[in-house]
Order: sequence, then structure tokens, then C-alpha cells
Amino acid sequence: METSNKRIKVGIVGGTGYTGVELLRLLAAHPNVDLHAITSRSEAGTAVAAMFPNLRGHVSLKFQTPEDARLSECDVVFFATPHGVAMAQAAELIANNVKVIDLAADFRLQNINTFKKWYGIDHSCPEILKNSVYGMPELHREQIVNAKVVANPGCYPTTVLLGLAPLVQKGNVLIESSGIIADCKSGVSGAGRTAAVSTLFAEASDNLKAYGVAGHRHHPEISEQLATVSGQGFELLFVPHLVPMVRGMLSTIYVRILPSASKTDFQALFENFYQNEPFVDVMPAGSSPETRSVRGANMLRIGVHKPNDGQLIILAAQDNLVKGASGQAIQNMNIMFGLNEAAGLQNIALLP
Amino acid sequence: METSNKRIKVGIVGGTGYTGVELLRLLAAHPNVDLHAITSRSEAGTAVAAMFPNLRGHVSLKFQTPEDARLSECDVVFFATPHGVAMAQAAELIANNVKVIDLAADFRLQNINTFKKWYGIDHSCPEILKNSVYGMPELHREQIVNAKVVANPGCYPTTVLLGLAPLVQKGNVLIESSGIIADCKSGVSGAGRTAAVSTLFAEASDNLKAYGVAGHRHHPEISEQLATVSGQGFELLFVPHLVPMVRGMLSTIYVRILPSASKTDFQALFENFYQNEPFVDVMPAGSSPETRSVRGANMLRIGVHKPNDGQLIILAAQDNLVKGASGQAIQNMNIMFGLNEAAGLQNIALLP
Amino acid sequence: METSNKRIKVGIVGGTGYTGVELLRLLAAHPNVDLHAITSRSEAGTAVAAMFPNLRGHVSLKFQTPEDARLSECDVVFFATPHGVAMAQAAELIANNVKVIDLAADFRLQNINTFKKWYGIDHSCPEILKNSVYGMPELHREQIVNAKVVANPGCYPTTVLLGLAPLVQKGNVLIESSGIIADCKSGVSGAGRTAAVSTLFAEASDNLKAYGVAGHRHHPEISEQLATVSGQGFELLFVPHLVPMVRGMLSTIYVRILPSASKTDFQALFENFYQNEPFVDVMPAGSSPETRSVRGANMLRIGVHKPNDGQLIILAAQDNLVKGASGQAIQNMNIMFGLNEAAGLQNIALLP
Amino acid sequence: METSNKRIKVGIVGGTGYTGVELLRLLAAHPNVDLHAITSRSEAGTAVAAMFPNLRGHVSLKFQTPEDARLSECDVVFFATPHGVAMAQAAELIANNVKVIDLAADFRLQNINTFKKWYGIDHSCPEILKNSVYGMPELHREQIVNAKVVANPGCYPTTVLLGLAPLVQKGNVLIESSGIIADCKSGVSGAGRTAAVSTLFAEASDNLKAYGVAGHRHHPEISEQLATVSGQGFELLFVPHLVPMVRGMLSTIYVRILPSASKTDFQALFENFYQNEPFVDVMPAGSSPETRSVRGANMLRIGVHKPNDGQLIILAAQDNLVKGASGQAIQNMNIMFGLNEAAGLQNIALLP
Repeated sequence: METSNKRIKVGIVGGTGYTGVELLRLLAAHPNVDLHAITSRSEAGTAVAAMFPNLRGHVSLKFQTPEDARLSECDVVFFATPHGVAMAQAAELIANNVKVIDLAADFRLQNINTFKKWYGIDHSCPEILKNSVYGMPELHREQIVNAKVVANPGCYPTTVLLGLAPLVQKGNVLIESSGIIADCKSGVSGAGRTAAVSTLFAEASDNLKAYGVAGHRHHPEISEQLATVSGQGFELLFVPHLVPMVRGMLSTIYVRILPSASKTDFQALFENFYQNEPFVDVMPAGSSPETRSVRGANMLRIGVHKPNDGQLIILAAQDNLVKGASGQAIQNMNIMFGLNEAAGLQNIALLP
Repeated sequence: METSNKRIKVGIVGGTGYTGVELLRLLAAHPNVDLHAITSRSEAGTAVAAMFPNLRGHVSLKFQTPEDARLSECDVVFFATPHGVAMAQAAELIANNVKVIDLAADFRLQNINTFKKWYGIDHSCPEILKNSVYGMPELHREQIVNAKVVANPGCYPTTVLLGLAPLVQKGNVLIESSGIIADCKSGVSGAGRTAAVSTLFAEASDNLKAYGVAGHRHHPEISEQLATVSGQGFELLFVPHLVPMVRGMLSTIYVRILPSASKTDFQALFENFYQNEPFVDVMPAGSSPETRSVRGANMLRIGVHKPNDGQLIILAAQDNLVKGASGQAIQNMNIMFGLNEAAGLQNIALLP
Repeated sequence: METSNKRIKVGIVGGTGYTGVELLRLLAAHPNVDLHAITSRSEAGTAVAAMFPNLRGHVSLKFQTPEDARLSECDVVFFATPHGVAMAQAAELIANNVKVIDLAADFRLQNINTFKKWYGIDHSCPEILKNSVYGMPELHREQIVNAKVVANPGCYPTTVLLGLAPLVQKGNVLIESSGIIADCKSGVSGAGRTAAVSTLFAEASDNLKAYGVAGHRHHPEISEQLATVSGQGFELLFVPHLVPMVRGMLSTIYVRILPSASKTDFQALFENFYQNEPFVDVMPAGSSPETRSVRGANMLRIGVHKPNDGQLIILAAQDNLVKGASGQAIQNMNIMFGLNEAAGLQNIALLP
Repeated sequence: METSNKRIKVGIVGGTGYTGVELLRLLAAHPNVDLHAITSRSEAGTAVAAMFPNLRGHVSLKFQTPEDARLSECDVVFFATPHGVAMAQAAELIANNVKVIDLAADFRLQNINTFKKWYGIDHSCPEILKNSVYGMPELHREQIVNAKVVANPGCYPTTVLLGLAPLVQKGNVLIESSGIIADCKSGVSGAGRTAAVSTLFAEASDNLKAYGVAGHRHHPEISEQLATVSGQGFELLFVPHLVPMVRGMLSTIYVRILPSASKTDFQALFENFYQNEPFVDVMPAGSSPETRSVRGANMLRIGVHKPNDGQLIILAAQDNLVKGASGQAIQNMNIMFGLNEAAGLQNIALLP
């Protein structure tokens, strides 16, 4: 891997959650990054490593108030915050020539009515939204290069979109536009580091359930991107499930092949589509990717199965906190700053 | 619950696995059962409670060789054995007027070619097979009453068949015959108590994967029963997943509603269909049954969701070792011997 | 087991936590109990089974406000509440001839200064405290028979006290009074059903830590009872650990044998001491009790090891929610009302 | 971190277990290592990454037979094998100027009678043993520099010895020589990647037990090293426990302070003793190290507690597969070859 000498000054807003600590884990080992500041009003003054002892010896920053953090001196600021925070601060940062990568949903949906419906708030900066880019490098790499604001994709959408992308390319759609089913399973860290009864160990361990069957915020995000990528509408069912594991996400995606495409070699199609992608791994035919094979790594592994001429099953596994969140955010940063896209993202997954 | 004074002399062949110890847990507390013998050639002489300390103080039996066990003196013998054992011994037991309940697959498939294809052995007693009954009380209660040999259903089939049964009744099929998808998730105890690398704690914990995507033995079992119940063929995709929990199974079933049935009140349909069933619980509209709500209990809980006029999602949760195996076997026994069907099966699930 | 026809009208104050739902699970199946009322101000009007779906079909009660619950009509009221609630209501209940079993700490410590030091509040009814009984049947069965108020023991103290009791009998103390070490390990349900970051699945899973090393409320409780039982003081170190399992508690207790007792047959001592106890199981010499062997059961299993003439290791395992809380509370109720002590407590542990 | 350009040619014997895959994960990212060969007779021809998919894209080696592997061309060979293999092959390797690091027990015990007693085989090369070094860098760094054969320490001994080392230095022993208690807890990966019923997920999950109470092979290893370090004998009780987590080990060590040392500032003692150690972290006074704070990292974190003037509690946490095995082995390699001791070992632990 070629290395660059460029230095990037990085700020993080809201670093007390799981995407925050994961950004820190990865950025602290990034060869081109200087961690400048991390903000948390409630924890101002606390050493980050006191809250997250895995960072002892690696990160010496303390949480700061937004006022003290002088984020406008950064090259880029990551928002690892609840929805609504990034859009309130983006304008000022952009004005100071600071790039923004939002790990929440503020810039994921171009349709602001859809945004309001699902997130319950008006979008406060539709002009910035219009120029923001959906930060999925495999689909939008060229726009990311010059983006000032990148919306880091949701965890479920990352698996479903990368699982479907080779099948729905504009002018070459190979599957029926209805009847797509995304049966998705997530580890509990996806629910965040927020005190809640439903994600207590004694509630979530040795248990399994579907949730959000009636509707989930990642559904419109998937739909909008499918339309963007393909130029047409798709209807899908999306059912998330909560699985008793800390990290990991597996989406089992069922599609119906268009009769005209029934003879396609889908294994080859996927392999070709992703052949130059550093962080998408199309596994050998017949494989079932395990979530632990990507634990801690910025990698999405795909298995392609064709049970009959009319149907396809795509299995897509990732670590929801890495390729599904903080790792992908750093991948976006690398692209935005002309670094090697894989810089700081070469960790091998922890197995077992 | 009315109680009977009848005494049933019970034998178990092969009691060293999880369905065996679960049979013992339930039978030891059954008001009408006298445990007569349990066989295991390899463990002959060992006290059952020495191998399974939860049974200390409740079960005083020792494992015996088949020769010593005098199973022909029993009223009923449960086979908690690998496939192939029950069919080798059934004839002799029947000749001695002993009823047989097989928890393995020997009598689950009426089509002996299908059986041979999936289990790799010829069926050794097709005549007995022909008169055996598939032991799903909700579908075949009347035949079970007089059965000499009952095939206890597979765990996955129990969830999928009970999830689909109200929709595929002969003369009243409400869903399309193709495009059924059963995305099923099982706890690791379903793999049995056999030393294997793939189900070690350090392999299966904090991990998730699909398996058997190319084909699974429970698929033909589901198909045959769907045909029996409905009088027509159905095509389904069935993808099992291994979830890091000890017990529990959740099947998420996606079907397409026939246009003629699009106005059906499916919640009411399910509630009516199962209203007199002691061990199927149709939860309120909008519910997502959790596996822990049935942990240790002979209960299958169902949630019915209708995301749009054309599709239905059925969620079916059970304890794979109870309603999915040993509990259902005892339910069958109760029916075969004219006992209260719920005798010995009233345990409340362990939550948390 | 001889059964009685007596009916006991039971109330529960505070039923939304784990000891509450566990009381309900056990009481719903108790042959002599009529569940009269369960209170929760915040959940008044909610069906208990809507919050705890394992109870569907078994418990039809709704949560009520304390005002509506008419607890004074009960024969006994269990308090599954935070510390401080039971002592505020005990006087009125007693005046109405209602017995009280408190699962919190209000009546566990006879020394009110110690109580204030550890719980931060003054004791509000020292006279009632004086007449209350520490509800460990194996140590105080005779006093429990006539008690109006029973303090149900803490989970850790149950394991440590029953592990030490045979060694510290008044007039027959066999171990040194100092140097006792209780290294205790608990499943996460012991922390209760309260939203907290530290017991989230993503925090507590695949993790292990000691906590409360500088001091824990169960320490003075153990010390006071050791003094009561033995007539002398003992010094012990007590270090609790949080283990990633839902239920279960294992205490590893290290003591030094008095020179005069070095030839004692401790295995026989323990077996004799507990030979008539229905809920303490002294396992064969050399055994290591597993927590799963008591999962869901009102049972404490003990292993006794003598590594050398001077030291003894006692292993004591229980389900923290059953023998360590709700099961023991019902055991106390059975004694207080002259029922068979084992009534409603015969469940076999769930293994696996 | 200063980097070196030196290249080290590395071989691994027996790479199909957990210490093997962990060596590969770490060595694949090591800046000075060329992976030369990995042997497994049973898996010869299989790509390592086919067995361990986390290595896909990082390790292109295939397993080879020992004959094909030309290990004599290596600079160093790691043995991640059962006990007995390394001592059979060490002589030939040494003769070819290849250094040996054994992750099994062949060279851990200098006393060959003790070795035979605990491992059941005669030591086959006592002369090589005599010149081998116990590879705990914090205790024996100088001898490791020139060692030809290094015995990589056991996982439990690493925690107990590093937890006790500051207290038992020759000429400055601060604790009593008897009454040491090491209550140790390990994740299940410590049992290895060998099919066995007792470590199946359905056996080990949601469960806790002590094991090896009557004796464990790591006990004599701890004792011999304590004697080596201190120049005197120590008596300790060592009780290992199996905890339902994949990785992680926590030892809770109880010692009695010598009266002469009762006023020692033990927190300062530990901080000073380890101040220059890159892989031992003495946490702030009052801390309880969590195993997840070292998950995947070559780090041992220590908490020191002094409950009273006479006793000390030391908490020592590590990842059993890293500092407790493969990471420490690479630390030894770095020292043996004059590399930066931290080369390839800077990963930050994965939390959550």
C-alpha cells in the first residue's frame, strides 16, 4: 500500500457512543490523521480513554465542549451524533472550509418530505443537502471526491444496497422490480450506547426477535438509493431482526430474476462488479459469509446463491460498526482527501 | 385442567442428546408417566442425573443397554436417536403392542424416494411408514389418536407449517403457490449434543450465518405436508440460519396473497384457526414474538403482519427443543393415550 | 408430595422487574395461590402478560395502582421493589394481618446503623425490624414459621451463607475466623430490569469484570448472619464479578481449616448438614456445580473440595432469580402458611 | 515507533487451532515478517483463508505437509501444536539455525519430573530444555534476546505471574509465602478449536463452572516461575473457571501482605515496576479491568486493591489468545530478532 505524507486534522462531534469509540479506534491508528478534538457537552473534561479503556495508551484527548473544541480549525469533522445535530452545524463548518461526514441520517435522504416523515423534523438546510453526497464509495466514488458533505450510509442500507447493486444498474436491471425481500439481522450494538430496557443483556441475550416490521427508517433510504442507482422504482419488504451478538449484520436478500436474465452467471457478475473494490469480497460460489469473518474489519462479504432459474439469494455480511458505520466513514474521508482509500482500514477481522 | 389417573409406562431409546434430556425433564414431571427405561449402549450403567445434573433428585434411572431395558413392556417408546434407528426397531415394538414416537426423521416423509435422497438410506419398513402419522396435532389430531407410530415433526417444519396452515387449507388456499420464502433462524441446540467444531462456543458465539442454503432435509418435509394439507403443490425457498442462542427458533415467512383474498382479515383468520389450540398463541396484531417468550415452554407464538394488500409476513417463534421436539412428542403421547393434551406441558416460559 | 387445599391470597408490590416476573411465573403455577393483585403506578392498567409475554395464557392480572389493589385483603404481600418501599408500608399491612415478604434489603440487617451506612436512609420502622426474620429457611426455619415480616436474603449472601453454614455452627466452628474469601460471579439479571449503560448487551456480553471491590451491600449482610449463626465474628473478602449470562450465580469460597478440624470429613459434614433440605444439593465429592444445572429451579448445589489439610474450597451455584430471590421468597411463604415447603417449587432446571 | 527494515522468515507448525489463526492474523500485518510456510498434515493443500475467512485477502498461504514446508529455511518457527510436538522437532531446527517459539508446554517446566507428572510423557530433549527460556519478557527479557528456544507461557500463568511479580522480587518479597489464591476465569477459546461436547455452544453458553479444581497443568508452571523469580517457594490455590465469552481472561488474586510491608504504596509499586513495559498497563487506583478492554490486543491490564492492611487483591485481565498466547509469542520473536518489541502488536482492542 502506497502511503502519503498528508496530514488531516480531524474533529469528532459526539464521541460517547459506539460509532464514536469505533472512529477513535480506527483514526488513532490511521497514518495520516491528527486527532484534533472530540466534543461531548456532558463529558467535557473526561479523558476519552477513561470512558473507553481500550484506548488507553493510544488516545490522549479529553472530551471538550463544542465551544472549546475549535472545530473550524479541522480539515474534516465527523458527526457521531443523534439525527438533527449535523444539519444544524454543517453550514458554519463548510463556511470555514471544513468537510463534514455525518454518520447520522441528516443527509441520507434527498427527499425532504420523506426525511420529515421518518425523522419527525424539518430539514434545516435543504441547499446543503442538495449538494451532499451519499457516501457509499462503491456507488458514488466520483462524487465523494469533491463532496463537502457526505452522508454516511445506514448499516442496513449498506448491506442491502451492495447486495443488490450489481443487479440493478441503470440500463441493465436483471431482477423484477417487486417482490424483493430483505430479511436483515443485526447485532445489538446497532441500537447504540443508550440506556434502554430493550437492549439490556438480560433482555437481548439468548433471545431473537423481529422489530420494526411495520416500518423502519432505513427502508426509504434503501428505496431512494435503489432508484438513484437504477433509474427506476423498486418495491421491497425489509424486516430487521435483533440477534444476540455484539457486532455483526447479515442480510439475506431474495430477488426474482427477470426471465431475460435467467441464464446470467450471477457469480461472475458479482465478482466482476466488485473486482477492484478493496472492501467488498465476493466469496466463492456456494459460500455463506459469517459475521465473525468481518468482526472489526472494514469489509462486506457477499455470497451469491441461485436456487432456481427464477430466484436469487444474496447473503451480505458486515460489521455494523465498521463497514456499516465508522469504517465506511473513514473510507469516505480517505477518498475526499485523496489518500489511499484503504489507509487505516487494513485491520484483519478478529476470529474467533 | 382435568386430571386422569391413567399410568403410562414410558421408555426412551437414546437419551444422551438434547431431545433426550428434554424428554426426561418434561416426563419426570408428567402426572401420568412412569419412566421405565432409557437406553444408551455407550453410557450403560451411568445414572442419567450424573450426565444431566439438572435431573438430580428428579430422575433416578440409569442408562441401560437395549437388551436390559425390556422396552417391550412399555406402553410407548420415544426414539431420541439418529435417523435410521427407529425404523429398525419399530416392527418389534408394534408387535408387542408398544406405541412408537420417533423424534428423528424415519417416518416424516411418506415418499420413500424423497427419504432416500435426503437421508441416504433405504426405508426399511415402508408398510409401517404407510400407517404412521405425522405428529402435528394441530393438523392431524384425529389420526394421531389411533396411530401406532407417530413421526414427530422437525423443528423448522413445525414453525413453517403452523405459520402457513391457516392460509393453505384444502379448498381455501389464500396465497400464491410460488414465491413463499421461509427465512428461519435457530438456536445452536438444534444442532444436537454432538462434538463438532462448527458448533463450539468459540465458533458459534457472537456470530451469525446462513447454512444449508443449497438444500436442507426439512425442505421436503415442509413441501410434502403443505401438499397434504392443501391438496396442491407449493414452491418455497427455505434458508436456515444459526443464531448464537441456546434454545429458540424464529421463522419469518413471506407469502404473496392471492388477489381474490386481498381483503381477508388475516389476523382474525389466524385467531379463529387456532382458537382452541392449547399450544399455538396468535399474538395481538402488530406483535413480534420473541423466542424467550417460549423458552422451555410447549408453545408456538405467531405474529401476523400485512405490509400491503399483496403480501403477508408471518412470524413464528418456538423453543426448538420443546414445541419443536420433545414437548410436541409428549403432546402426541397425550393424544395417543387419551390423556389431557396439556398434561405435563403447562410450564411457563423462563423469562428473562 | 402431599398437597394441601389451603388457598393463599397473594399480592405483589412492584412487579415490573425480574424478581417480579419470576414471582409471577412461579406463583401462577403454585397449587395453593390465588394471585390477587400486582401494583405498579407507572404501568397501571397494563396487562402483566403484555409486558411479559411468557405469562400469556397463565396470568390475566393487570398492574394496578396501590390504591386500587386493596392489598390489605391479601394473606401475604411480596415486595419486589427498590429498597425503602417495604418498610414504608409494612406497618399498615401487619395491622391488617397481612404477612410481608420483602425481596429488597429493608429487613435484612438488624443493625440499623449498618443499614443506614450502606443504604443511605434511616430505617423507618426499627420495631418491626426487630421482630422480622431473615428468611433463609435452612438457618432460621423455626422463626420463619411465625414471622410476620420476612427479609428475603440477598442473592450473594444466599450462596455464601449456605456455603459456609455447616462450618460455622455455634459451638462447632471448624474454620479460621479470618482469611475467608468469597469470589462470587453473577449473571447480569442480578442487576435488575433497569435501563443502564453498564448492563446493555453490547457492554456486558463477551466481557468479564469485577465490580464493587471497594465495598458491596451484601458484605455486611453476610457478616451479620455469620455472626448470628456462629456466635462470633468473621472477616471475609467479598469480590463480586459480572458474568455474561442471563441467570446464574457461582460463589467460590476459600476458607482455612482450624488445625483441630483438619481431619474432618467435610464431604460427609455437608451431606449430613443438608440431608433433609429440599433445596440444597450437596453433590458427590469432586463435583463442580454448573449454574445451568439450576437454571429456573429453586436449588442451590454445592461442591466441596479439600486441596490440602489446611484449606477448603466450597463451590455454591444457584439461579440468582430463584433460590437467590423469588423462589426462596415462595419457600418462605410456604413455611409461613404451613404449606408443603416445596409446593410450587418443584420445577426441574432447564438444561441446556 | 521506530521501524526496522529487517525481514524475518516465519514458519508455523500446526496452524488449524485458535493460537494458529491468531498468529496468522498478527503476523500477516507485521512489518518485518514474511510468512514462509504453515503446516498441517490433515489440511495440506487447503488455503488457510478457506478455513479462516477473516484472512481472505491477507494471507495467501496454503497448509503444507511438514515435508513440503522446508521449515529449516525459516528464521523462526512457531509451534501452535499439542504438547509433545515441538520437543520432537526442536533439535533439527536448532541445528539449522532456526529459532523455536513453542506455544505449547514442552519447554515451560524446567523440572522434567514435574513435566512428566502433568503431561504424561518423558521429556525427549532435556539438554535443549535446559537452555530454553521461559518467554515472559517482563521477567526474562535479557535471556530471551539470545535464546534459541523460547517457551511461550501459558495463559493463566501470564496473568498470575504478572499480577504477582512486583510483590515477589528476589530480596524484596512483600507477601506471605502461603495463602495465595488465584481465582481465574477464562473465555471458552482457551479450550482450543477441538470438537468436544463440553465446549459446545449449547453447553458453555449461559453457564458458568469451575473446573480442574483438583489440579491443573498451569499450577506447577506458576509455582516454578514464582520460585525462579523470588528465590523461594510459594503455596497457592489456583481455581480456573469457564466463562461464556469467546476471548478474555481475568484473574482475581488474593495475597496476604507481610507485616513489614503493610505500609507499602502498592499502587505506586506496580506503576513503577511496569512503567517501561509496553504491554502491561497498571490502571488507576480503584480500577477493575474489563476483559473487553484488551480484546484482540497484546495487553495485560492490572488493577490493585488494598481492602485492608493485611490483604491485597490484584485483578489482571488479558485476551487469552493474544497476551496469553500468540501476541506474547510475537513479542518474544521481536525481542529475539532485535526488532522493536511492539512491532506488529499495536492493535487497539475491539470495544464493544
